[in-house]
Amino acid sequence: MTTKILLDEQDIPTHWYNVVADMPNPPAPPLGPDGRPVGPEALAAIFPPGLIEQEVSTERWIPIPEPVREAWRLWRPSPLYRAYRLEQALGTPAKIFYKYEGVSPAGSHKPNTAVAQAYYNHEAGIRRLTTETGAGQWGSSLALAGRMFDLEVRVYMVRISYEQKPYRRSMMKVWGAEVFPSPTEMTEAGRKVLAEHPDTTGSLGIAISEAVEEAAGRTDTSYALGSVLNHVLLHQTVIGLEAKKQLEQVGEYPDMVFAPCGGGSNFGGIAFPFFADKAAGREVELVAVEPQSCPTLTRGVYAYDYGDTVGLTPLLKMYTLGHDFVPPGIHAGGLRYHGDSPLVCQLYHDGLIQARAVAQLATFEAGVTFARTEGIVPAPESNHAIRAVIDEALACKERGEPKTLLFNLSGHGHFDMSAYDKYFAGELQDYAYPEEAVREALAHLPKVEAA
Amino acid sequence: MTTKILLDEQDIPTHWYNVVADMPNPPAPPLGPDGRPVGPEALAAIFPPGLIEQEVSTERWIPIPEPVREAWRLWRPSPLYRAYRLEQALGTPAKIFYKYEGVSPAGSHKPNTAVAQAYYNHEAGIRRLTTETGAGQWGSSLALAGRMFDLEVRVYMVRISYEQKPYRRSMMKVWGAEVFPSPTEMTEAGRKVLAEHPDTTGSLGIAISEAVEEAAGRTDTSYALGSVLNHVLLHQTVIGLEAKKQLEQVGEYPDMVFAPCGGGSNFGGIAFPFFADKAAGREVELVAVEPQSCPTLTRGVYAYDYGDTVGLTPLLKMYTLGHDFVPPGIHAGGLRYHGDSPLVCQLYHDGLIQARAVAQLATFEAGVTFARTEGIVPAPESNHAIRAVIDEALACKERGEPKTLLFNLSGHGHFDMSAYDKYFAGELQDYAYPEEAVREALAHLPKVEAA
Repeated sequence: MTTKILLDEQDIPTHWYNVVADMPNPPAPPLGPDGRPVGPEALAAIFPPGLIEQEVSTERWIPIPEPVREAWRLWRPSPLYRAYRLEQALGTPAKIFYKYEGVSPAGSHKPNTAVAQAYYNHEAGIRRLTTETGAGQWGSSLALAGRMFDLEVRVYMVRISYEQKPYRRSMMKVWGAEVFPSPTEMTEAGRKVLAEHPDTTGSLGIAISEAVEEAAGRTDTSYALGSVLNHVLLHQTVIGLEAKKQLEQVGEYPDMVFAPCGGGSNFGGIAFPFFADKAAGREVELVAVEPQSCPTLTRGVYAYDYGDTVGLTPLLKMYTLGHDFVPPGIHAGGLRYHGDSPLVCQLYHDGLIQARAVAQLATFEAGVTFARTEGIVPAPESNHAIRAVIDEALACKERGEPKTLLFNLSGHGHFDMSAYDKYFAGELQDYAYPEEAVREALAHLPKVEAA
Repeated sequence: MTTKILLDEQDIPTHWYNVVADMPNPPAPPLGPDGRPVGPEALAAIFPPGLIEQEVSTERWIPIPEPVREAWRLWRPSPLYRAYRLEQALGTPAKIFYKYEGVSPAGSHKPNTAVAQAYYNHEAGIRRLTTETGAGQWGSSLALAGRMFDLEVRVYMVRISYEQKPYRRSMMKVWGAEVFPSPTEMTEAGRKVLAEHPDTTGSLGIAISEAVEEAAGRTDTSYALGSVLNHVLLHQTVIGLEAKKQLEQVGEYPDMVFAPCGGGSNFGGIAFPFFADKAAGREVELVAVEPQSCPTLTRGVYAYDYGDTVGLTPLLKMYTLGHDFVPPGIHAGGLRYHGDSPLVCQLYHDGLIQARAVAQLATFEAGVTFARTEGIVPAPESNHAIRAVIDEALACKERGEPKTLLFNLSGHGHFDMSAYDKYFAGELQDYAYPEEAVREALAHLPKVEAA
């Protein structure tokens, strides 16, 4: 009875899987302010050529540069676990497997793409990266990756998180990054927001505006995004590719694959390599799990919208709650985003993947059950997948159905213990779906007539 | 070029190594208040038979029960790393290897013995465990282990840590343990201290007194200690046994082995299995690294002393700074202990192992260098070993000597980021050796005339 299924370093995949090659309908192109598709050249102001190429590629397999695999070796291949103790506690006939990405030095799956992005920027002679971060998962990952490829990193951290969650900020400093509470006075976007709302707590959308503005204005500086874009999801497919190999080793294949879904890279990372099989006729259900309070896929509209608050990014065709929608203050900061990856959205629109929305309290209850059986204390984002998996495992028990379930345990909760404290103290709440706020935000959707 | 050297689950050792079998002089026996050796029967009030047997055993190899190995599989075997990036940054010809114990759910090596202790207590029909904890590494490990073997766990947590370091406390609660700030009004020892010093911040010694008192007074309850005792060090030898196998896989053997040393289980865990070779004639240096501000081995006296502050424990023959010595407030809470394992002390007394003392600021500088090269942010305790290893690697560079160095990276620093913050803010200090306080404490050494 093997608990952990491990791979050797030489089993780290040599190619990323590009889901675009197998999509029946390719994702709609990003549009500029004029309503015309944005070509690769327009992205050159903020991204290096290697990443732009990947952003628009339709090749099925894209080689992973050796220095990226080399850097990954600090934590990859990540382990796949069979959750025997959780299965026993639930009394389910289902088999539960989880891929554990919390083994990275930053504690989540984010360094997978951070390292790749740092590499391509370094190759292009870029010396600085700017980015945004909410709770700090992404900012700390880019700080680590920048250190590995000799890049300076400047992080615009959502002000409320900067103040309330100091420890990922500390981690960024340990790795040598500069961190500022956003909005700042350093960018036009920041000054504009501060002029209108001097007491703003900031938001991911605002921080993106600031980071993009700075990168666009400096030739030595690129911008790096932690999710949403095609190349980011591409990099994360290393998760699902490894998981497939690991399941093969024990003669298993999942009936269902679950992951939390905010910007989409967590879900795309584990699910897309299984979509390749689904496209080839194999039966497998892919389930994106999102918060009830920010239910982009399950309640949003499928439309062109900005990726940021101020409107500096190209327009992306995605399920959206409106670019100026501010999600309720749930603790899964990584899932508080108004939009979603265009790749994930297109697949959802075409009925090829599923989505479920879960409530905050139920996710923490699931996280505690997981910690008390499997040991690892999960990140609040990961608790969303765990909730859906436990529900499914209990349904399997009900039906006497021995399904094989796989999910992405995307990170540990070491920097989220205050949220668990609040959960135990009865200070966490569920938020009703903010229907009014969404309606208002959707009224501000940009008017687009695609050419 | 392999970064991580992994073992399969079936390579988890089947036997612990008992260093007593190879010691030229066995450790002096613990003594009771009457100055006579304490027999196994006297320990039965607070420990189960399985652990008492191990405490006094002279067998070289002691079988590891299958349920312990089974529980360990959640994180063991732990990886051994070659620190290529650190070596490069130092420009040293030395090879640096580290065993990473931060992969356990509690983030340190402590669960190795916590699981074993929980198992033997469960086997003996015990239903509750009491223990003490400082910063919470040990308390959280026992909380996790208790959960695995259906034992209630009550933790007396040093008051100042309870207040200043809430997140390991939260972790204990996630795993279902009760946690109280010590001293409490619940024990005679606690009430006595509070009566004399109502504003006390608590200490490890006081918390031990409370936990021992409670366990001694209840038949359903045992006491569990996180270091110092023979059986605890025995359990930790899994670290060194795995490391030896892993080094063998790549054809290496260390010239020197380093570990932080507080109560001794971190050091004994990685070093003792190499002592077995040393006893058989192989050359290997074993180096315990301690804080300059609490230099038990390098500045203490070798004498019988209490393990706790109040004087409830048997007398142990050890290097000690005096049982009522309160070490300066360094951030490596796990190394703030007045005494040390009798096994480690005997070996040190016989000149078979070495000890070095390092200053706080230098340890954090080493930790940041490590994080910026190897990625992992280390615990302050681990930074002590890293400091000594970096110094040795630089000496190797000086001398052009390609030594092979191994150290125990005993834990990550995710719950110690405030200490890194203070380091960067210039708010950490070095403490002079507290000569006066030690002299005073040593004046209170119990008068012992061994029978």
